[in-house]
Amino acid sequence: MADDALFEFLHMEIVALVYKEQATREDIDKERVTCVSTLEAMGFRVGQGLIERFTKDCPTFKDDLDLMKFLCKDFWSTIFKKQIDNLRTNHQGTYVLQDNTFALLTQFSSGKQYLEEAPKYLAFSCGLIRGALSNLGLESVVTAEVSLMPSCKFQVVIQKL
Amino acid sequence: MADDALFEFLHMEIVALVYKEQATREDIDKERVTCVSTLEAMGFRVGQGLIERFTKDCPTFKDDLDLMKFLCKDFWSTIFKKQIDNLRTNHQGTYVLQDNTFALLTQFSSGKQYLEEAPKYLAFSCGLIRGALSNLGLESVVTAEVSLMPSCKFQVVIQKL
Repeated sequence: MADDALFEFLHMEIVALVYKEQATREDIDKERVTCVSTLEAMGFRVGQGLIERFTKDCPTFKDDLDLMKFLCKDFWSTIFKKQIDNLRTNHQGTYVLQDNTFALLTQFSSGKQYLEEAPKYLAFSCGLIRGALSNLGLESVVTAEVSLMPSCKFQVVIQKL
Repeated sequence: MADDALFEFLHMEIVALVYKEQATREDIDKERVTCVSTLEAMGFRVGQGLIERFTKDCPTFKDDLDLMKFLCKDFWSTIFKKQIDNLRTNHQGTYVLQDNTFALLTQFSSGKQYLEEAPKYLAFSCGLIRGALSNLGLESVVTAEVSLMPSCKFQVVIQKL
């Protein structure tokens, strides 16, 4: 029924809370960076917890690409109720995950009008991906890019140890 | 698969964030009250939003009891993946909803050990109920009571206009 709505509403509340708390502080300079990293860290922990449940009865993955495919299908579907639309890789540890109708951006008008608001609503999800990968033994840097709402690209760069 | 885990993890993050933010402030006296009401207000808005989606294609309710039953079954199931176990009323506007294994308390050890931590984890859900009722035209006061984890009673008192 409205399962997906629960996550979307909670996510909106979290973003609003993080930005509101920061606005009452004095160090406005640091504001934007702190908020994004607070949200990213929350996503990281949630991603870690979720992947642990997801992969409990799973076979191991045969390589990084296999793992990324699992993330794009099963992991993404459970959280965002749809799969990633396109997965690309350079086969050297960089992956681009494209979601053409990213659930957390669909409430905005399409187009470029609210483009500068987008990073607020992507930080948590970058953390989700990074947390999931981290729990599976892959350290990564995850960034997001929006050029036209509600489509979104996540870039994952696996860090070689 | 792990749909319910997503909500539980997010909820834990929210509680942790609200209490952490408050801990960095100076007015320790007000601390506990403010945190609970911040969480309650977040739950209120989420409850309002959710009930709007839930009841979009629903017939209207024939009376308050009918509405409470809907809340105990459909609304509760979607959020907490189970129904309320017991609903009581004095037929004068007071309802007691009992959940014997309340999802947000099951991660604690059973019994009385962490009883004083419980209110943190109930405020959001009190808000959920109050928000849902409010959007259906009923103003209410919602409180929660735990005597033995993970069982929990929510008391709803409808305010006569």
